Amino acid sequence: MATLTVRLGTRSYPVHINAGLHDRLELFSEYLQKNAVCIITDDNVAPLYLRELGRTLTAFAPGHLILPHGEAHKDWRSLDSIFSFLLKRGFGRDAVLLALGGGMVGDLTGFAAACYQRGINYIQVPTTLLAQVDSSVGGKTAINHRRGKNMIGAFHQPLAVVADTNALKTLPPQELSAGLAEVIKCGLILDEDFFLWLETHVQEILELNPEACQYAILRACEIKAAIVAEDEHEQGRRALLNLGHTFGHAIESALGYGEWLHGEAVAAGIGMAADMAVRMDWLKASEYRRICRLLERAGLPSKPPASLTPMQLLNHMRRDKKVRKGRLRLVLPRGIGQAVVSEDFNPQLLGDTLAGKPI
Amino acid sequence: MATLTVRLGTRSYPVHINAGLHDRLELFSEYLQKNAVCIITDDNVAPLYLRELGRTLTAFAPGHLILPHGEAHKDWRSLDSIFSFLLKRGFGRDAVLLALGGGMVGDLTGFAAACYQRGINYIQVPTTLLAQVDSSVGGKTAINHRRGKNMIGAFHQPLAVVADTNALKTLPPQELSAGLAEVIKCGLILDEDFFLWLETHVQEILELNPEACQYAILRACEIKAAIVAEDEHEQGRRALLNLGHTFGHAIESALGYGEWLHGEAVAAGIGMAADMAVRMDWLKASEYRRICRLLERAGLPSKPPASLTPMQLLNHMRRDKKVRKGRLRLVLPRGIGQAVVSEDFNPQLLGDTLAGKPI
Repeated sequence: MATLTVRLGTRSYPVHINAGLHDRLELFSEYLQKNAVCIITDDNVAPLYLRELGRTLTAFAPGHLILPHGEAHKDWRSLDSIFSFLLKRGFGRDAVLLALGGGMVGDLTGFAAACYQRGINYIQVPTTLLAQVDSSVGGKTAINHRRGKNMIGAFHQPLAVVADTNALKTLPPQELSAGLAEVIKCGLILDEDFFLWLETHVQEILELNPEACQYAILRACEIKAAIVAEDEHEQGRRALLNLGHTFGHAIESALGYGEWLHGEAVAAGIGMAADMAVRMDWLKASEYRRICRLLERAGLPSKPPASLTPMQLLNHMRRDKKVRKGRLRLVLPRGIGQAVVSEDFNPQLLGDTLAGKPI
Repeated sequence: MATLTVRLGTRSYPVHINAGLHDRLELFSEYLQKNAVCIITDDNVAPLYLRELGRTLTAFAPGHLILPHGEAHKDWRSLDSIFSFLLKRGFGRDAVLLALGGGMVGDLTGFAAACYQRGINYIQVPTTLLAQVDSSVGGKTAINHRRGKNMIGAFHQPLAVVADTNALKTLPPQELSAGLAEVIKCGLILDEDFFLWLETHVQEILELNPEACQYAILRACEIKAAIVAEDEHEQGRRALLNLGHTFGHAIESALGYGEWLHGEAVAAGIGMAADMAVRMDWLKASEYRRICRLLERAGLPSKPPASLTPMQLLNHMRRDKKVRKGRLRLVLPRGIGQAVVSEDFNPQLLGDTLAGKPI
């Protein structure tokens, strides 16, 4: 089993990564008390893994709540149904929530834990590649608002993350690819060696080779953990992790949530950020091609959908949380393995990127 | 001007108390940026103080949102209307909210600030005595859930608190009394001298003598601040501040929110806690009578409404946030100027208190 520690002082926590972890009681038991455990999951994941996890935790008599799946349900209604369930069953401040599922379940459950009775504990049990690499590290929790994605939320760190790589076997190939977008992003912003490793091993990951999957998740989590440890509340350096996200959120928001997977939109966003970096002479055209090629080999887009106009994209970008004093801030690659936050760019170049003008 | 500092490390903040503070630009300006300020208030307070505060802050071109008043609106709908307003106007993470109003506006605005884009800053500008002594110190923010009061919330400290005692002039006498319940509570749990001072000066406060009001608010805030500084997240000692609240919340919840003012319910709750403390031989009958007498002189009840049955009260008490492992925890006075958290009490004595059995 690979274990890394996300170092955040008194809020430090372990991330365990391996096959078969849903069966390992000892990873959970130190945090739990009988009759004060509730598993939150969705109707996609429940038939696959709820019984397995419930059996492991039998001694704690966990409650469970099954929510409708999908990003469209990462909203106040689902959140309120968690609160109602917990209140109805009399869960108190000593309760621990277990988020069993993908990013939607993790974000929602984490935010519910952040707010319920002003904050209770939770454990992430991510079942998708995206959730295992992305929502596991950093304590970002949120729900969507009809005016923007992840606009309402909290920074709330879990007690632990238990990422069972066996769960990837039931993941649709499209979602495995979507998770790879975040893995590729981690290499691109901070670790050229890891990017090179991904260029060599992407096919093995897609074929679910256990060692390749474990290493990819571990390294992506390590990169994220190092950045988050320096900047828990995204005052500075943590913003680098948003590479591809300002463009990506605009794509998701303009298309309507659920049309493209989050990871697909981020992949196109990474492609667009790289495109813009080339126009700014921060990235070589050959590096841009390597990035697009890796995204494509991972089964991902590297450009936005042709149906969206530059103006639509720009309007949605302006609502990004990273907008400060009305200025758009973009995370852009400076070569492979390095990235910077920039708000001092030529708007014309952004226009060219949004219009898909040839580089 | 009296100023105290709530000491919470990097989240320390000042509480300013005096007449005429809504006009003092310098108390606000260091925290604000132009076009990134939004005043949240309600339709009771807006006609009285919104223009005054808006004029002081003209240079920052503040936005404002007026919510319907009353505890019944301290809910998700009002919260969502704040989020919609902020998103529609394009407020970013650098925005600062100003909570102008009573406890409902303060709790709601504080919680909105805690969640909007995962956390922005806010300033409390409390206009009721209750808000000036209670919600000013400690960063407790929340909304109500139909299954319980303040069940959804966060600990989120303001940048500053600006308590203008002139605002008390427009407060209905019943609400002034309600605020005094929290002031009396502070003396009762920690400071016998302050309790004695209140016995001597309660009438002056009711007559809005400026010095008496300023001192009462300052001392109550100091007592709260000392406790909160030791225990920001209510893991231990901070629970003492809940004296009267487990009983009080049960009264509010059983009657339906809005029937009794929060402070009135807390006053009755203090009376009930004192009643139970006498039955446990923790408090002398003469001390109990002094407590009831001070509450009554302040224009407050010292007993629950006769319409509620012991069983109704008990059922609502069981939903309290302080319930741990199914055990009810009560804060009870041990003499005047001292209180303890107890979960090891004789349920029969609680039953006698709830039934109003003569001591």
